[in-house]
Amino acid sequence: MKQNIYDNDTFFEKYQEIRARENNYNNLLEQPNFFSLIPNLENKVVLDIGCGMGNFAAYCISQGAKHVTGIDISSNMIAHAKKRHIHEGLTFEQAAFEDMTVTNGTIDFVSSSLAFHYIADFQLLIKKISTALCKGGILLFSLEHPIVTANKGRENWITNKEGDLLYFAVDNYQDEGLRTQNWLVENVMIYHRTMSTILNTLIESGLQIEKMIEPVPSEEAVCNLPSLNKEFRRPSFLIVRAKKV
Amino acid sequence: MKQNIYDNDTFFEKYQEIRARENNYNNLLEQPNFFSLIPNLENKVVLDIGCGMGNFAAYCISQGAKHVTGIDISSNMIAHAKKRHIHEGLTFEQAAFEDMTVTNGTIDFVSSSLAFHYIADFQLLIKKISTALCKGGILLFSLEHPIVTANKGRENWITNKEGDLLYFAVDNYQDEGLRTQNWLVENVMIYHRTMSTILNTLIESGLQIEKMIEPVPSEEAVCNLPSLNKEFRRPSFLIVRAKKV
Repeated sequence: MKQNIYDNDTFFEKYQEIRARENNYNNLLEQPNFFSLIPNLENKVVLDIGCGMGNFAAYCISQGAKHVTGIDISSNMIAHAKKRHIHEGLTFEQAAFEDMTVTNGTIDFVSSSLAFHYIADFQLLIKKISTALCKGGILLFSLEHPIVTANKGRENWITNKEGDLLYFAVDNYQDEGLRTQNWLVENVMIYHRTMSTILNTLIESGLQIEKMIEPVPSEEAVCNLPSLNKEFRRPSFLIVRAKKV
Repeated sequence: MKQNIYDNDTFFEKYQEIRARENNYNNLLEQPNFFSLIPNLENKVVLDIGCGMGNFAAYCISQGAKHVTGIDISSNMIAHAKKRHIHEGLTFEQAAFEDMTVTNGTIDFVSSSLAFHYIADFQLLIKKISTALCKGGILLFSLEHPIVTANKGRENWITNKEGDLLYFAVDNYQDEGLRTQNWLVENVMIYHRTMSTILNTLIESGLQIEKMIEPVPSEEAVCNLPSLNKEFRRPSFLIVRAKKV
């Protein structure tokens, strides 16, 4: 099932509001760690899956990439991307990656920031990426951490009567599959997969794991957004870099 | 700090009682998954770290291993191992692995079942193992899962007033280091490390991750020990197989 939540107008408006704030989880926590694992992009062919408004695709061009294709299932996102970023090395396409035809071994770098938890068939996704990558090519992706995606429709942070956080609740970890979350709007569909499923799927598809990050915020980030302190108690995100062998 | 809890008489007695029961977590959950990742042992040189009473070392010999060294910090354990298993290919030594001198590239297979969470310096441990392994050699180990080791001195399973399990509590995940647990006796020292620290340490030491298992019990295992049903809610163990490259 392919969900196109970013074409829900209410969702998209609220999403834009959050991203417009400088101090959000993406900018302060996920992005710095994601960027720390980007390979050299000089003259490279890049595919950005879930490219959103195209900022990362444009960044890759600024770092010398030869060509960057950004794809996103949301026509809202692709419209914004095409308006914002115009460059001969940039192509934006409205498409679900599952439906795309990829040419074997043509891509040097596949990136995807916080999109893979929306994709139902992770095995197919990774197999297609591995096929598209050239030998030595890099896949870098981030997603919601399995500790976070495990639970089914429950508030995960448990507080006492005074509202102080006590701990984070984990349940249903081994029961992989669809979860519906209420984030910005009701019933956003994401898919829970265990840590071992995520990593074994990469390995079985011919990708060698190079590095994993479960991000912790910098002191400065916590100053700017105190709620980031919770990140020391359990990770929100998982970032993985893997190489096609 | 090297803790030698298995030489505490109370602990050792209670431990022997648990292991004497056929239906325990090791036999029903950890061991079948651990065994599923053992490489071909024909004519191989094996090192078993935390060998306990030597059963696994003896098993390796039965599978054709040329020589197996079993080491354990506990003199209780080593005394039992030496008494139980006598074979020209078997050597048991009472030693902390941190203190052992290893010869470069001489070992084909390093195994360790549920011992690494007792070792303070994980980086040194893995570096020494990687040095000892020959090219293509395999490290297979299991340890307590980071979701479980994260918490500090709290009951991790949260129940309602009726005693029904609600969820598992996670806290302090990013705060690595010493934890004291009450398991059989008070103040058993173990070390919490995040999933990313565990896997990145392997990779940085020249080991390539081949497979990870977060075990779920079989139907038969749950029949024999109903409390194993909890394992679907969060994993107790992490099993990793990695190859020296």
